[in-house]
Amino acid sequence: MSFTLQAQEGGARKGVLRTAHGEVQTPAFMPVGTQGSVKALSPDELRDLGVGILLGNTYHLALRPGAERIARLGGLHRFMGWGSSILTDSGGFQVFSLDHLVTVADEGATFRSHLDGSPQRFTPESVMAVQRALGSDVAMAFDQPAPWPGDLRGARAAMERTHHWAERCLAQEAAPGQLRFGIAQGGFDPELREESARALSAMAFDGFAVGGLSLGEPRATTYRLLQLQTAILPADRPRYLMGVGTPIDLIEAVSRGVDLCDCVLPTRIARNGSVLVRGGRINLRNARFVEDGGPLDAGCDCYACRGFSRAYVRHLFMAGEILAHRLASIHNLAVLLRLTRTLRDAIGGGRFLEVAAALRAEWESAPLP
Amino acid sequence: MSFTLQAQEGGARKGVLRTAHGEVQTPAFMPVGTQGSVKALSPDELRDLGVGILLGNTYHLALRPGAERIARLGGLHRFMGWGSSILTDSGGFQVFSLDHLVTVADEGATFRSHLDGSPQRFTPESVMAVQRALGSDVAMAFDQPAPWPGDLRGARAAMERTHHWAERCLAQEAAPGQLRFGIAQGGFDPELREESARALSAMAFDGFAVGGLSLGEPRATTYRLLQLQTAILPADRPRYLMGVGTPIDLIEAVSRGVDLCDCVLPTRIARNGSVLVRGGRINLRNARFVEDGGPLDAGCDCYACRGFSRAYVRHLFMAGEILAHRLASIHNLAVLLRLTRTLRDAIGGGRFLEVAAALRAEWESAPLP
Repeated sequence: MSFTLQAQEGGARKGVLRTAHGEVQTPAFMPVGTQGSVKALSPDELRDLGVGILLGNTYHLALRPGAERIARLGGLHRFMGWGSSILTDSGGFQVFSLDHLVTVADEGATFRSHLDGSPQRFTPESVMAVQRALGSDVAMAFDQPAPWPGDLRGARAAMERTHHWAERCLAQEAAPGQLRFGIAQGGFDPELREESARALSAMAFDGFAVGGLSLGEPRATTYRLLQLQTAILPADRPRYLMGVGTPIDLIEAVSRGVDLCDCVLPTRIARNGSVLVRGGRINLRNARFVEDGGPLDAGCDCYACRGFSRAYVRHLFMAGEILAHRLASIHNLAVLLRLTRTLRDAIGGGRFLEVAAALRAEWESAPLP
Repeated sequence: MSFTLQAQEGGARKGVLRTAHGEVQTPAFMPVGTQGSVKALSPDELRDLGVGILLGNTYHLALRPGAERIARLGGLHRFMGWGSSILTDSGGFQVFSLDHLVTVADEGATFRSHLDGSPQRFTPESVMAVQRALGSDVAMAFDQPAPWPGDLRGARAAMERTHHWAERCLAQEAAPGQLRFGIAQGGFDPELREESARALSAMAFDGFAVGGLSLGEPRATTYRLLQLQTAILPADRPRYLMGVGTPIDLIEAVSRGVDLCDCVLPTRIARNGSVLVRGGRINLRNARFVEDGGPLDAGCDCYACRGFSRAYVRHLFMAGEILAHRLASIHNLAVLLRLTRTLRDAIGGGRFLEVAAALRAEWESAPLP
């Protein structure tokens, strides 16, 4: 088995996911390297941050530079200089959420490239072939998320198509050592969510994702639907909550038995000057930081906080310097990775609920998008 | 004395410049950190590249975030997290070359800020006060370069004003341990250049710069005027050729007794996708690199060349990823720093002319801006 459960406490799980490129301590937060690069950061910086697994985007890499090209250059790990694990999503979310005239049929989805408008076609078979060519450690099944709020009929159709596609994905050959995860959907209907978790659980995936959440629904709905599915998904295989990753989301997800999360939030908000600090976030463009000689966050030991002041990073943002994005991205990732490690360390020690409650109280006051 | 000459050969000099922040092995190439950051790079990366001294821009830092602000935050070294030496230019070049309605009088120069159009005034006294507040290791005197091609009368007026300003700069208090360099001008007239070098040499500066070259004149003119001045400037003090730094320029400057150079070239061309390679340069945006699995330059051991392919860095450029700028900037700086070290190591060993000739032959075929 590629996944070992080491401890459980209060719904949360501590484990190890073994991939062709090493061991991933779970729960784990995966930074997003959409185009073969976690924006503004180098592989060395990610290693220094303790990142064990990255996410790469099938949709983006398939369109540019192309999966076969990356395969000829030695695969995605070698291409981007990353020796640890990589999970690739299937492109389902991008195909159905980007604004590019998608049409869907049982065979697959056709859409126009966001790069040049060229017609493109993704099928379960093609998406698995792309991920095979990329050589990722974890390949995700092709899925169709249902939009929020949507309607029950549409959500059911998308879910059933997702299930059929999942079976077709499993019928495809994987890259050597490549794990395959299915994606549970079901829109925002509790019964569909349960039905989808049951249907996926019957398939021989190495792990399961909860997809199609955090699309605009209230957070209480997100967490309730998540919990319905993690209660059903096989306990001996890893669970991955897709695209969710504010501090509070991480705490709530881990508390509900999620082992993997990814989110662009830490690097995306960093580029706008926002940094996560104890109990909230601040925007460094605010004039009040103009002579603030303190670190981004007094409790942080990341490279940005060790060497630079808020005033300096603010100056870099105002001056349009790339180093601003780098330092803010390093810091925000450090915060989410540390939060995940703190949660992980608490699982099985008898104090998880207490630790989670304290972290929740710390971050609840912090409104995040 | 802050400068020790260790060896001389064929016009070239090997030495050590001692500043309040350490020793600089000369000849040295100074990367440019205009706004308190060498574009796209971190201080750690500059250290890893072996950079011993950086250039900061008085003009830019005085306008944003302001010298007094940097002083209150502990000075420029602490502000930007750089523990080694910093030379600050005086802003003369920026004031007289940027397009902002400059008017000059003996008292100083008035102009409009490129940031907000606000009226600004630089005088020899204010410029030295800014550099004192920044706490740079080397402060440059305020100067007025003459434009290319210009006329003799204008060049003489600018030169004489530069000499008067130099005396006023020397009358100002320096920061503790701060060295002060004068700037020789003289436009493009050999006699003025000699006159300026003689006038400056009579002043108690810790070093001397050759300014106002590389403004569009033929390279043969640049080198001839440079040589006229280095022949006159005191041999026991360091010479700095300002704003010149293609590989060939470096070789020619060092061969004429220059100890310090700076240039934005390596980081500026990097941002456009151009990287320096043995015998020339390539633009990674060119389609021929789309599946080139080799390093940027096979002879280079920099971080970019150790871990990434031309195809990958090209992909990053095409995808607009910041890591592209970082890797290309690291590589281009590595090339110029290595070239400078190679020249330095050869001085005094009896093979300098041979080494310089070989490097000249290697780079002569490489047209650079």
